[in-house]
Amino acid sequence: MIIMGVDPGLTRCGVGVIEAGAPRRLSFIHVDIVRSDPKLSQDLRLLAIYDGLVGKIERFVPDVVSIERVFAQENRNTVLGTAQAAGLAMLAAAQRGIPVALHTPTESKLAITGNGKAEKPQMERMVARILGLNAPPKPADAADALAVAICHALRPQGALQGGEREQHLTAAQRRWAEATQQAARRRGVRRDM
Amino acid sequence: MIIMGVDPGLTRCGVGVIEAGAPRRLSFIHVDIVRSDPKLSQDLRLLAIYDGLVGKIERFVPDVVSIERVFAQENRNTVLGTAQAAGLAMLAAAQRGIPVALHTPTESKLAITGNGKAEKPQMERMVARILGLNAPPKPADAADALAVAICHALRPQGALQGGEREQHLTAAQRRWAEATQQAARRRGVRRDM
Repeated sequence: MIIMGVDPGLTRCGVGVIEAGAPRRLSFIHVDIVRSDPKLSQDLRLLAIYDGLVGKIERFVPDVVSIERVFAQENRNTVLGTAQAAGLAMLAAAQRGIPVALHTPTESKLAITGNGKAEKPQMERMVARILGLNAPPKPADAADALAVAICHALRPQGALQGGEREQHLTAAQRRWAEATQQAARRRGVRRDM
Repeated sequence: MIIMGVDPGLTRCGVGVIEAGAPRRLSFIHVDIVRSDPKLSQDLRLLAIYDGLVGKIERFVPDVVSIERVFAQENRNTVLGTAQAAGLAMLAAAQRGIPVALHTPTESKLAITGNGKAEKPQMERMVARILGLNAPPKPADAADALAVAICHALRPQGALQGGEREQHLTAAQRRWAEATQQAARRRGVRRDM
């Protein structure tokens, strides 16, 4: 399964692509930043981000697009552009019938390091280790895009969009999901990997 | 000139189309609500809104798309979806080379009633009067979309997106723009029409 992770942003939108093979065997395919020129007007910036994301989706044909969830409480100066970039990623996927999943940064950190409050260097090291890379991926701020892709692979059902997800979980998966949700609620509680 | 106004929303996205003819002669063309089913997942809702907006743009071929500006301070439960819907309207316009303008609700109220804090019934009456309608447009919550289209027609340069706008203003237009901006800053100060 090809998973494309997206760390949304209007100026820099991270894209990370991995392959999830035999149980929990994850391999690195691609990482990049899709950019828009801050000097352009907002409509042209959104067009640049959309076109960049469509290019990545058409090149790598992911089975799922995993996007970092945006919260209204975030930095007021950037949150709307970030939300719009996330919306464009969802649109680009939906137009091609590709399922979309949303994961919070805490969920990514928890899934990858076992600590929902893990710092960036720890996340980068673990992303590299999980993907069998000799060094943390560059550019450094693209690691978040790989992280949200890895998070989707490591979570049991991957929090696909839509209300029917829970019904498709096995009993074990449901217990896992409940435990993860509880842990996420407690933010940062350590979990055995 | 055909102006399409968009009152962005993820559940209900207002679209109003007017024609601006000889000096300040505005006429009504169309008003409608583009909807998405709240029971669908967010990616499919964004796709529905985008497809609806594209349908309107391709039907009416506006010369400019005037969108109500979204602020990060707005209702936390809806602001991200509203921002995403606005982003889709910008994308749909930019993909067709149609200029985009953003106007705040205060600017619309000021341009239409002379009062930046005008209440909804007053706005609806003035929208109907300006467009020569016998009754306020239905559905009622589509009046905001017509209002942001009218606002664009009545403002001197229409606040087109992009940093170069100011350079193209005449001295009189610049004074008008400055006065409007000051009035908008003071929010609700009365202005002679």
